[in-house]
Amino acid sequence: MEKFVKILIDTKGGDKGPATMIKGAALALEKYPQLQVALSGDTAVITAECAALGMPMDRVEILEAPGEITNYDNPAEALFRKTDSSMLRGFAALEQREELFGMITTGNTGVVITAAIRYLSGKDRVRPALAAVLPAQKGGFTCLVDTGATVDCTAPILQHFAHLGAALMRDMYGIESPRVGLLSNGSEAGKGNKLVKETYPLLEADEALNFVGNIEGTNALSGDCDVLVCDGFAGNQVLKVTEGTATRIITDVMKYAHRTGSKEVMQLGAHLMSLYDIGSLGGGILLGTAKPVIKARGSAGESAVVNTVGMMLNLAANKAVFDTKDNKVN
Amino acid sequence: MEKFVKILIDTKGGDKGPATMIKGAALALEKYPQLQVALSGDTAVITAECAALGMPMDRVEILEAPGEITNYDNPAEALFRKTDSSMLRGFAALEQREELFGMITTGNTGVVITAAIRYLSGKDRVRPALAAVLPAQKGGFTCLVDTGATVDCTAPILQHFAHLGAALMRDMYGIESPRVGLLSNGSEAGKGNKLVKETYPLLEADEALNFVGNIEGTNALSGDCDVLVCDGFAGNQVLKVTEGTATRIITDVMKYAHRTGSKEVMQLGAHLMSLYDIGSLGGGILLGTAKPVIKARGSAGESAVVNTVGMMLNLAANKAVFDTKDNKVN
Repeated sequence: MEKFVKILIDTKGGDKGPATMIKGAALALEKYPQLQVALSGDTAVITAECAALGMPMDRVEILEAPGEITNYDNPAEALFRKTDSSMLRGFAALEQREELFGMITTGNTGVVITAAIRYLSGKDRVRPALAAVLPAQKGGFTCLVDTGATVDCTAPILQHFAHLGAALMRDMYGIESPRVGLLSNGSEAGKGNKLVKETYPLLEADEALNFVGNIEGTNALSGDCDVLVCDGFAGNQVLKVTEGTATRIITDVMKYAHRTGSKEVMQLGAHLMSLYDIGSLGGGILLGTAKPVIKARGSAGESAVVNTVGMMLNLAANKAVFDTKDNKVN
Repeated sequence: MEKFVKILIDTKGGDKGPATMIKGAALALEKYPQLQVALSGDTAVITAECAALGMPMDRVEILEAPGEITNYDNPAEALFRKTDSSMLRGFAALEQREELFGMITTGNTGVVITAAIRYLSGKDRVRPALAAVLPAQKGGFTCLVDTGATVDCTAPILQHFAHLGAALMRDMYGIESPRVGLLSNGSEAGKGNKLVKETYPLLEADEALNFVGNIEGTNALSGDCDVLVCDGFAGNQVLKVTEGTATRIITDVMKYAHRTGSKEVMQLGAHLMSLYDIGSLGGGILLGTAKPVIKARGSAGESAVVNTVGMMLNLAANKAVFDTKDNKVN
């Protein structure tokens, strides 16, 4: 008999409110029979929503948390002043209770990262990375790491990120030897800024990595590597410029559809929207923490909750990346 | 009577060979009656092409140059060993002859930048920047600076780039007070890596700049600023990720057109291709040099030559950015 996997879902902090998060949890419970959820937030609200949706309460736990982290909260301050929030009660529970596998939250990214360091990192560990797993042009997925958790990096930090990303792709998609690329401003070996030039030889010499060299922005998501390593500032640009460009072109397509009244163009627009809706793909995965934490977009809807739960369950099927016991990466 | 503007065109170093560059020059001469060109390269080849195209030879000068800079050339080495190349003979002529307004080349970017420093920069000047002027979503254009000439920057360098970009947009499009944005990983004032956090107060305090704050990747080309300042590594990502994403989506559109056989979708694909063909938009403009140099893509075709000549002539109409006399930026 398959064991249950229990995932904590933070019901507050998102743009669409607790009802959306709870609806997402209900859909995920329907889709995944091995799933149990712990919902952190206002007991009264959660109880009412669960009843209205007819959720299977033997698979639902409620974690009372009256407070809420907002996007206006300063991470360092929130960490001490808002311990009654749904996010921080969630982190605390994750730290203390072994049976909780991981957490999904739509809350303030800065607080998520700071809290992850406080609750889920051992001593002497580098900052966690926020990875994005995005569909590649040639099929499959590319793990972009880091996308903004650590904007000023050193070469050893990038090497560490390479290992975190490779472990994730191994566990999530069963890729035995993930191809690791280094984001640069040219594909030739000598290209790059100071950081990239220092990182290249480290990745090249690391026998535990399948390093495939520099990758330039044009091919960031082409599928030439499984893991694309970069500092959080550059990675944030790759992620957001991809999204901005896709949104812009899809807007052009939809305008053209309305102007021409063409049914085919309209269908194409809808198809592209579902393909390039980065927000619904599941958001960022925090790597380098003792347990998996997924930071979904603030604007995440029900389907994003279902998708992120699916990612968590994939990870649960193979726990090598995140191990509460020895806190090891690979 | 309007004066002639003489522009040097490097006929070698591009993927498509001298015939394409000369054809581009011929089309530009037809389109712009005030244009004169100096073509650097093999006299025999240029003479034959000019004759075949029936070009007005009273507006064409030939600058004999037997050598060629290739993409395999090391910039520092090429600078000393390939002084007989069409590119370096072009730079030397630009330095020595006042009547030459500027140069267009499709050659090796590294050599272009190194040669620009050697031939067209005064003492004590920071490295030149390679700007890209791209169509913005809300209309108009955004000048992205730097896109790869200087990948490791300091805050004063970025401040200098802001001035170069603002001067370009003033001269090229008559924007009196160009809005300057700073590329960051969030739009709030405190966001950014170390470099961005150091640059922000410099731009904010600079009364000669119309600073509008941080701009994130999603809005890099939305049109929220006229000049987007960043280091060459990040700018290279913005440029290439935009191109890669556009190419990918347009490929999707064309595949869909072939599958459905829809004429509307096919027309849409062609429209998007012309809109997002970054290669034909004119390539990079070197800023911070005594005379304007445009580095067109290696793959540039005839229309790119015509477009870049048009940009040069716009600049010639107002020479404030590039001034041979006092070498000043603003």
